[in-house]
Amino acid sequence: MKRDPSNEKKPLKQVIIENVSPEIDAGRFPVKRVVGEKVTVLADIFTDGHDSISAVLMHRKKEAAEWEETPLALIVNDRWQASFDITEMGEYVYSLCAWVDAFKTWHKELIAKVSAEQDVGVELLMGADLIEAAAERARDQGGQEADAGWLKERADFLRSDAGQKQRIAAAVEKTVRFFMGKYPDLHAATYYEKELVIVADRKKALFSSWYEMFPRSCAEGDTDHGTFKDCEKRLPYVAAMGFDILYLPPIHPIGQVHRKGKNNTPTAAPEDPGSPWAIGSVEGGHKAVHPRLGSLDDFKHFIAKAEEYGIEVAIDIAFQCAPDHPYVREHPEWFRHRPDGSIQYAENPPKKYEDIYPLDFESGQAWHLATELHDVVLFWIQQGVKIFRVDNPHTKPFAFWEWLIHNVKTDYPEVIFLSEAFARPKTMYRLAKLGFTQSYTYFTWRNTGYEIKKYFTELTRTRIREFFRPNLWPNTPDILPEYLQMGGRPSFIIRLVLAATLGASYGIYGPAFELCENQPIVPGSEEYLDSEKYEIRTWDRSAKHSLSPLIARVNQVRKDNSALHNTRSLTFHDVDNEQILCYSKHNEDMSSIILVVVNLDPHHTHGGWINFPLSELNIDAQHPFQMHDLLSDARFLWHGNRNFVELDPGIMPAHIFAVRKKIKTEENFDYYL
Amino acid sequence: MKRDPSNEKKPLKQVIIENVSPEIDAGRFPVKRVVGEKVTVLADIFTDGHDSISAVLMHRKKEAAEWEETPLALIVNDRWQASFDITEMGEYVYSLCAWVDAFKTWHKELIAKVSAEQDVGVELLMGADLIEAAAERARDQGGQEADAGWLKERADFLRSDAGQKQRIAAAVEKTVRFFMGKYPDLHAATYYEKELVIVADRKKALFSSWYEMFPRSCAEGDTDHGTFKDCEKRLPYVAAMGFDILYLPPIHPIGQVHRKGKNNTPTAAPEDPGSPWAIGSVEGGHKAVHPRLGSLDDFKHFIAKAEEYGIEVAIDIAFQCAPDHPYVREHPEWFRHRPDGSIQYAENPPKKYEDIYPLDFESGQAWHLATELHDVVLFWIQQGVKIFRVDNPHTKPFAFWEWLIHNVKTDYPEVIFLSEAFARPKTMYRLAKLGFTQSYTYFTWRNTGYEIKKYFTELTRTRIREFFRPNLWPNTPDILPEYLQMGGRPSFIIRLVLAATLGASYGIYGPAFELCENQPIVPGSEEYLDSEKYEIRTWDRSAKHSLSPLIARVNQVRKDNSALHNTRSLTFHDVDNEQILCYSKHNEDMSSIILVVVNLDPHHTHGGWINFPLSELNIDAQHPFQMHDLLSDARFLWHGNRNFVELDPGIMPAHIFAVRKKIKTEENFDYYL
Repeated sequence: MKRDPSNEKKPLKQVIIENVSPEIDAGRFPVKRVVGEKVTVLADIFTDGHDSISAVLMHRKKEAAEWEETPLALIVNDRWQASFDITEMGEYVYSLCAWVDAFKTWHKELIAKVSAEQDVGVELLMGADLIEAAAERARDQGGQEADAGWLKERADFLRSDAGQKQRIAAAVEKTVRFFMGKYPDLHAATYYEKELVIVADRKKALFSSWYEMFPRSCAEGDTDHGTFKDCEKRLPYVAAMGFDILYLPPIHPIGQVHRKGKNNTPTAAPEDPGSPWAIGSVEGGHKAVHPRLGSLDDFKHFIAKAEEYGIEVAIDIAFQCAPDHPYVREHPEWFRHRPDGSIQYAENPPKKYEDIYPLDFESGQAWHLATELHDVVLFWIQQGVKIFRVDNPHTKPFAFWEWLIHNVKTDYPEVIFLSEAFARPKTMYRLAKLGFTQSYTYFTWRNTGYEIKKYFTELTRTRIREFFRPNLWPNTPDILPEYLQMGGRPSFIIRLVLAATLGASYGIYGPAFELCENQPIVPGSEEYLDSEKYEIRTWDRSAKHSLSPLIARVNQVRKDNSALHNTRSLTFHDVDNEQILCYSKHNEDMSSIILVVVNLDPHHTHGGWINFPLSELNIDAQHPFQMHDLLSDARFLWHGNRNFVELDPGIMPAHIFAVRKKIKTEENFDYYL
Repeated sequence: MKRDPSNEKKPLKQVIIENVSPEIDAGRFPVKRVVGEKVTVLADIFTDGHDSISAVLMHRKKEAAEWEETPLALIVNDRWQASFDITEMGEYVYSLCAWVDAFKTWHKELIAKVSAEQDVGVELLMGADLIEAAAERARDQGGQEADAGWLKERADFLRSDAGQKQRIAAAVEKTVRFFMGKYPDLHAATYYEKELVIVADRKKALFSSWYEMFPRSCAEGDTDHGTFKDCEKRLPYVAAMGFDILYLPPIHPIGQVHRKGKNNTPTAAPEDPGSPWAIGSVEGGHKAVHPRLGSLDDFKHFIAKAEEYGIEVAIDIAFQCAPDHPYVREHPEWFRHRPDGSIQYAENPPKKYEDIYPLDFESGQAWHLATELHDVVLFWIQQGVKIFRVDNPHTKPFAFWEWLIHNVKTDYPEVIFLSEAFARPKTMYRLAKLGFTQSYTYFTWRNTGYEIKKYFTELTRTRIREFFRPNLWPNTPDILPEYLQMGGRPSFIIRLVLAATLGASYGIYGPAFELCENQPIVPGSEEYLDSEKYEIRTWDRSAKHSLSPLIARVNQVRKDNSALHNTRSLTFHDVDNEQILCYSKHNEDMSSIILVVVNLDPHHTHGGWINFPLSELNIDAQHPFQMHDLLSDARFLWHGNRNFVELDPGIMPAHIFAVRKKIKTEENFDYYL
């Protein structure tokens, strides 16, 4: 830019807008919100010298023609803030505009001079010039003749020979400020160079309770292959526990070739059903239903029935094929071929997974493949599925997911994609950035207080919270964590309460979870013994030790308390015993506050002093307040910041307290008044 | 991007490059380095699946045609790193390229399979295909026939009927990897979307010692008006103290109209010289020299003389005018006019500064004004000045400075601009980002250990260090901090040692500083009594209490120890007495380590145990090491991480230790060997 004469047209003095938040990777990725949430935008806004600044936050639905404007307010240290509400699904865009406000500067300086009893004769003439210029802008905008006339009159009065006191009063009148704000001088205004995008989902994208269940294990009989009809009979059970999403592992035909037997043995017995993730056989592929589960119509009936119970059915998207999947025959170009003519099976050398053929996204046909997979998703949307749990998305290209999810959500903004990527952190976050609605997390392996605090602080207190929505699973069909293997029933309760209250979204794989199934295939392994992945299991759902009544209560507490409908308010509190974890959450207006206290040791009773900073929660430290344990229904009177808690894991290892700020005293009695 | 058919040309599977460091505001601003420094670039680089990745850092001088490439190495958690050296002044650019490396993946998997004693017959054929493809790339590049031939031969051998063991050995040979690295398959490579810029300055931009002096106070006689000739006689004094930059307040004619008298009184007596910052009179403006200082030739002679002493002369750029500055008459359009026809003077209502007219950067003539100011800087460069201290840059537009500094440094990369912006943090950092070489800091008011640690951690351990080079001043003609007013001579020593060792660049305003001048104009003010800004002062430079010998020693220590030539290695160490501040610095290869211990209390003796983490500094905790106090020349034997220090401010409130890792023992005696 050496002495570029074109520079001479740009105003030199402008306002700087920088360090805008939220903004993901310089605007490369959208921010996520759900309907009903607020977007609070912050930015550093400043200029040279001592001039006053005005600034507005601009936002609109992407397809809208006009911006809505909200004035930004200065917080501190050149940091400005404004908010707007998300009211619809779809995409929003926002940006900022700021300008040097000569009238504001003049107004501030006039007041200072008047207070110092200086003569302001010349200043009033300067003000008249500024007001008259605004009158011209009002006129130029057309149809604002009345405003323009009012302003012109005021300018004339400031120039008149009326007394200085009267003219000062006329200059600082509120109406003048109102009209000057209505017709600002934007000739040198700074428009932030980016339009930032928000993807607005429905509320369930943020707050959801998932239950994973193998439909083939739903039959009443001993080891019969369950059907969608059987699944319908399980709906009351799932609904009674309070789940709102019922997620089924793949429902497609299962490959015969290299099918795995019970406990993942290399060869299957004739009656072995195989892993549902080995998708495709002569009976069909990703758009077919396993014949033993029923027909496509049965599936659609099941979805409709679930809806009656307030439950949405989620299915599994696992883009991989059994060797006998129709794609292998019909589209060999979608697979990698080895020099000996065979198709490349999945491997993690020296381990071989000969029952799975990965799809090849590096061939010249990769975009045709991508188009077909996109069609698979559309097919299931057309059958009524709006929620997809995506298996191993980190083994398919990032660009593929970004394209697919963006395409789908443009037409179906209500669709939810859950990323099942137990991968390295950068990969997991990238998948969330490029569009996955929710994501599996490392919660499954975070057991100690230190680990939980560190990880959830990263998820909820850094920029990651703008795009990554955690979904917390204490177990999955692939993962029986060591903590559950060794901690008995109390460990299941502990992990349930943590998942359901740390996360706005969580899920369990049942009935293994509620029945406290905890036998690994071999010691030191996280694989279940007699895993449902390879065989049909029968479950005694009415067993006495079942956690289902407790799960029902926990889910009811989640529904009733809006404090638990978000993750961004999560705050940890100090306890003088590291075996006790304490944290709170609240809703936007603090009308719902939940304090959770968990004894992380499933074997021993622990007590500790909790430090609960009342002032941050608008609780009066001078008066007692009531803690209502929503698990036991017990009520405690607490006072001040420090209070004692003791938890016996054999009875109940957790409290979920609703904080009631106001408790009744004699002042509430009629007699007293 | 709905089903855009053009997508079908893009490879779906690509490597992601993100979170590149250093990178300022998504590449909007350059990173700063000096010749001799390293640039260490870090980035998150990853892809889907389990494929191996290769990546290179690309850099070049901006004007060079070809990139130089350095392979990036994986550190941990998908974070990669590479470095290059800055060898010349000017602009460098850098970027990154990464790709899925099929050969690397194949090589890794082959080794795993061979180790598991699997048959790899097909794998060797796959390897042959990869190697043959590289042979073709070598051929396509032209002139690489020999390499192509070698590779083709190797591919043929892998396909031959030689024994599998021999073929494996031939496949994993180092030469194969070398050639495969030389001809990578880049068809789906990711090129980082930005070319990031580095401004490379000379070393003095980072490491410099400034001395500020009023030339008019340099005469031998009592209150004579000093001249440049007199200044020449002061050079030995400044040089003996070890300063390498001598900075003069404005040397231009001083306005007569509304000239300020002694101690900033509103009216000047006839003999009052006025403030040098009220620039311009009938005698000339920003390109003229004050006649009482001498001629322009005298000034150039002075510059040349200073050079003989290893001193560079810096002048002040203060873009503002006295009412009688020639610009006011010749270019009234560069000033703001009030409705009564008068020109707007500077004000901070209700305060008025009628002796100063600010320049108006909001008029239609602002770019003509900017061009003239640019000419002012070029004029002084042509007289031999290469260092400018810029007065109040935060009251002129940011875009103006960015344009001016960029223009100047394109032709004169050796020029240094010091930003004197004691403004809010965002403004100070913005000025640094847009081009200022060095910046004044809040050091002047950071006195307690907590304050110093917090502020210098922000400056040296965050991204701010990539663009903001602090220059630390314990005093200026405008600021006599309260700490110096109240702490006596020890407080001056404390602030000297802190400035000279916390900062790679620092400066003092003398002789007020070395003579421990500490009288404010009124209690509670930071203005000097009888400030040199408004009158000529005589100084007893040979006074017994002068700190000049100590300053000379401190500057010698700075020169001799390269640990002190940077700020980015600054590390604070715990001390169990908060009145004692302890920190270390080191050079790149740890051959120079300095540990500074300062008693921040100028009134009382303090002692404390220092925790000095030896392992981070490659010091063997098992053996004693020697601490050589470069101020007192005393030597101490220390051992282990914890050592005791006591400092009496009446004797010397600081140690500047050179850490000598190896001390002699009996093993160094001939007899012992």
